[in-house]
Amino acid sequence: METKQTVQENRIEGRNAVMEALRSGKSIDKLYVLDGCQDGPIRSIVRAARKGDTLIQFVEKVRLDQLSVTGHHQGVIAIAASYEYAEVEDILENARKKGEPPFLILLDNIEDPHNLGAIIRTANLAGAHGVIIPKRRAVGLTATVARTSAGALNYTPVAKVTNMAKTIEQLKKEGLWFVCADMGGTRMYDLDLKGPIGLVIGNEGEGVSQLVREKCDLIAAIPMKGDIDSLNASVAAGVLAFEIVRQRG
Amino acid sequence: METKQTVQENRIEGRNAVMEALRSGKSIDKLYVLDGCQDGPIRSIVRAARKGDTLIQFVEKVRLDQLSVTGHHQGVIAIAASYEYAEVEDILENARKKGEPPFLILLDNIEDPHNLGAIIRTANLAGAHGVIIPKRRAVGLTATVARTSAGALNYTPVAKVTNMAKTIEQLKKEGLWFVCADMGGTRMYDLDLKGPIGLVIGNEGEGVSQLVREKCDLIAAIPMKGDIDSLNASVAAGVLAFEIVRQRG
Repeated sequence: METKQTVQENRIEGRNAVMEALRSGKSIDKLYVLDGCQDGPIRSIVRAARKGDTLIQFVEKVRLDQLSVTGHHQGVIAIAASYEYAEVEDILENARKKGEPPFLILLDNIEDPHNLGAIIRTANLAGAHGVIIPKRRAVGLTATVARTSAGALNYTPVAKVTNMAKTIEQLKKEGLWFVCADMGGTRMYDLDLKGPIGLVIGNEGEGVSQLVREKCDLIAAIPMKGDIDSLNASVAAGVLAFEIVRQRG
Repeated sequence: METKQTVQENRIEGRNAVMEALRSGKSIDKLYVLDGCQDGPIRSIVRAARKGDTLIQFVEKVRLDQLSVTGHHQGVIAIAASYEYAEVEDILENARKKGEPPFLILLDNIEDPHNLGAIIRTANLAGAHGVIIPKRRAVGLTATVARTSAGALNYTPVAKVTNMAKTIEQLKKEGLWFVCADMGGTRMYDLDLKGPIGLVIGNEGEGVSQLVREKCDLIAAIPMKGDIDSLNASVAAGVLAFEIVRQRG
């Protein structure tokens, strides 16, 4: 499938164009629909979107007008991913093909596209087999993310999941261990981070959510000597990912 | 001295205001002067700026008009630092006070304010005693840098130097060793990074300049397994800084 990057982060506007995109299976990060609009074509679009588990937001006309580039949105605008998403299975297959124990990076609601791009870049260079992001509340694979990843998005698969905690559960059955970064944890040097592993990085402001932290086997702390609270999320991801590289090496 | 952050990155406009700022010793990141303007007040300003080794750029009137917020620049606009710069000596004193071997981070032309802010944040949490940036070609302590540093700029001194290679020479006399990151180097785990150390991080695109690299005692490589060239500069700085933390700990 064609991947196209535009400044407008791949906006698809109008009923035919949006329906076409949904039918073709193109990755849609978000669908904006005019609130209260109930005619046939709109209902078909919403139905197709729900079938594909696409995130739908019902908004006022004024919001659609703001989002519109062409001025002809006809009550519906889809934000297409700049890159195609992979499946979690593709990531595990990537590890199998390389004959390595799986090494995944899971992002629990990273919101800043620069951080997401930098983390995909880090994942590639640390030899991680893929990145998993949540469908809701987080940033998707926009053009900014692609640019900040410095090309890594062409090599490192990124999967999007509906329920991060449930995905962790499933991956545990595949033999993976999960480590998340948090201040109350054990010094990362004192943990065994070899073997099949998922590294969980939390949101920029709030850290790892309670629900996801409870699923983690290990909590790792980066030793902190300073006066402030926490590292930038992409720096923390880098420091932890390369501690895993050091232990695996 | 008062530190003030504005969206306009602390623009000082007009002859009296600029002369006043220079006289008071306020840190000026850059002075824009109308090209060809030779009257008395402007010449006094340029003289005062040169005395303080301030970076001066002579520009067309149209550029000044673009930069101006008030519309009354009178041929001169100064960009004040959002935070005051420290001296290199303050950084060494910071290490002495803590009874620790000096640990400095030197940035060879970091251009992105988000990277500079994230690195100052990392420096604080890795227990580095200060950061050194070059006067020319690099980003200074703007409001964006302050914001991205997440408060670290209030604790970690940042010094600005005219000649990075010369500063390294002088710090070597104080007993510091210098390590820079480059792909051709030795795996960072195999280097001895304990003791008084300066970590040199290069420019986002070009890496460490030839002149600065030649002054370094060690060249460290982060082990790279991926398909692309290099980590984001602030991630690389974080990974190396925490390898130093690990070895020191």
